[in-house]
Amino acid sequence: MRAAVMRNKALVVDDVPDPVPGEGQILVRTIACGICGSDLHFLKYGDKMLEMGVDLGVPARYDLSRDIVMGHEFSAEVLEVGPDTQAMVAPGDVVVSMPVMLPANFDMTAPDPQIEGVGAYSNVYPGGYGELMLLSSMLATKVADGVDPKLAALTEPMAVGVHAVNKSGIKAGEAAVVLGAGPVGLACISALRRMGVEPIVAADFSAKRRELALVMGAHEAVDPHAEPAIEAWRRIDGVKPVVIFEAVGVPGMLEQAMRDAPRGGRVLVVGVCMEADAVRPMIGIGKELVISFALGYDPFEFGATLQAISEGEIDVAPMITGHVGIAGVPQAFEDLGKPDEHCKILVEPALG
Amino acid sequence: MRAAVMRNKALVVDDVPDPVPGEGQILVRTIACGICGSDLHFLKYGDKMLEMGVDLGVPARYDLSRDIVMGHEFSAEVLEVGPDTQAMVAPGDVVVSMPVMLPANFDMTAPDPQIEGVGAYSNVYPGGYGELMLLSSMLATKVADGVDPKLAALTEPMAVGVHAVNKSGIKAGEAAVVLGAGPVGLACISALRRMGVEPIVAADFSAKRRELALVMGAHEAVDPHAEPAIEAWRRIDGVKPVVIFEAVGVPGMLEQAMRDAPRGGRVLVVGVCMEADAVRPMIGIGKELVISFALGYDPFEFGATLQAISEGEIDVAPMITGHVGIAGVPQAFEDLGKPDEHCKILVEPALG
Repeated sequence: MRAAVMRNKALVVDDVPDPVPGEGQILVRTIACGICGSDLHFLKYGDKMLEMGVDLGVPARYDLSRDIVMGHEFSAEVLEVGPDTQAMVAPGDVVVSMPVMLPANFDMTAPDPQIEGVGAYSNVYPGGYGELMLLSSMLATKVADGVDPKLAALTEPMAVGVHAVNKSGIKAGEAAVVLGAGPVGLACISALRRMGVEPIVAADFSAKRRELALVMGAHEAVDPHAEPAIEAWRRIDGVKPVVIFEAVGVPGMLEQAMRDAPRGGRVLVVGVCMEADAVRPMIGIGKELVISFALGYDPFEFGATLQAISEGEIDVAPMITGHVGIAGVPQAFEDLGKPDEHCKILVEPALG
Repeated sequence: MRAAVMRNKALVVDDVPDPVPGEGQILVRTIACGICGSDLHFLKYGDKMLEMGVDLGVPARYDLSRDIVMGHEFSAEVLEVGPDTQAMVAPGDVVVSMPVMLPANFDMTAPDPQIEGVGAYSNVYPGGYGELMLLSSMLATKVADGVDPKLAALTEPMAVGVHAVNKSGIKAGEAAVVLGAGPVGLACISALRRMGVEPIVAADFSAKRRELALVMGAHEAVDPHAEPAIEAWRRIDGVKPVVIFEAVGVPGMLEQAMRDAPRGGRVLVVGVCMEADAVRPMIGIGKELVISFALGYDPFEFGATLQAISEGEIDVAPMITGHVGIAGVPQAFEDLGKPDEHCKILVEPALG
């Protein structure tokens, strides 16, 4: 199959072997796959992430000297169900899935359940930057008829926002400041708005992203050069309990969120900062802050997000700013560095 | 009166004017006052703390070019009740107090209630490193007859541990790792033990402090050079939900606590680190950590701690490793740098 392959820290378009479904697996044809900021990170920092995995006590199993096909925000059409596989879906169905492959005899109570990534941190299971994928039959979820598969492909990134908001403990009637209106920040804004948080103040240097923040549910979107987000929150509200969402993930942002937070405030970090960052713990102590970190989502959050997109509760269409074929993936990675042009680019193998 | 005075970033013993009680104030004679690590910090970093106050939006009001008499962990004997003051205590009573002075017409709902420190961050109200102090009549609490005033002087530092433990959300039956067995770490250990946390694993490079950790309630105390605390916890338990208490407060400890914490773990930072510290937020994200910071205590926690000491529930006697007169304060500050010799040194003006 054709795929955009990560090879020697670069993306190249090449032919790679077709995946063959085994027990508990289904073979699917990629319809659409969003390009995630974490894939840009992985291309650049894959080696650092290996070191980090050791520090976390969860050594990664990928080998950067071998091909990796990334892409973990996908929708796909079922082509074939593997041997000895009970599947809830059938050939022709459109599905989405959490981007992980469970072993055929999955036992979630096992000490090491041998879960592999699909399109993420794995040499084994190619992701949506290729024409074909294998999915876990237990995780593939049918997208309702009539729902645009391109919108359904955004289930994964939007679930990240749902999880971050759940993790923050914020409640309806409280206020939020969202630092960064890239896809992760926008997913948080969408989840906050649906939860009844008000006001939601977004901050981004990009005019395009501020506009998207308002479309996705922010009550105010500011350019931090003109007005810091926390000042905007004080101007608009300033009295409700507030949670600061750090959705930028570059050095300096954690300390800025800590400085912005009021006494007793909460900071939720969902922006992935790969580099070491300097913070002054005294700021946390002086204000008795609580800093929580969020990663991923659980199956319930994933399913609820698909449902919300399917029923039109979340309109993700404005976030999709580009469509490329597999051949266009390397250029799309370049283009995503320009926040004033792009938010989410979909890879659609059918485009060539 | 005689006092150990902070002047030009150094401690000197000198005569300073006797304080005169105003409305809402009582004049007391210091019986005993513990030397706190934060006083060592303040002597060294008082200027940085002024800058930090600006960052926190609560500019400090002290002036380092003028005398400051520190000492905020005290017990004292009431000498005189100020004019127009309703006091619950009378001359001759032994009292302890939270080290803050409330204005005579204290209104806790006022936007700026004008609370000043006593013996802490204030040029106005001298602390327990001097012979005489003014206390707020509303806050001075009588120590029950028969209770050793020297033990009661440890109410303040032990309340810091009670608050940190409350803030961490830890529950009976869960496990704790306490990094650092100085007075703050020991106060946490004492509070954890009384709450029914088990096991409590303490870590300190000092043999003396490890011994104290066991006396104050730790189930295990390790030398991190020989066995990291988290390894000891895995050896002893390794399955219960665990909270890591960071009670060291030097650069690198926050990241270490983050590395030590298991997935979904909680870190409670109570060690005051004045310097900028480098952390890798990715460690927090990868494990979805919650990091909470604790500072001080509330009046209820303070009162409950006095009661626990008074009733013998907490035996603080082993923590007291030295007694000096006012003339001995500068040397005691030096001595506290040697953790194998000292834990808490009491300043007792009666010793000269």
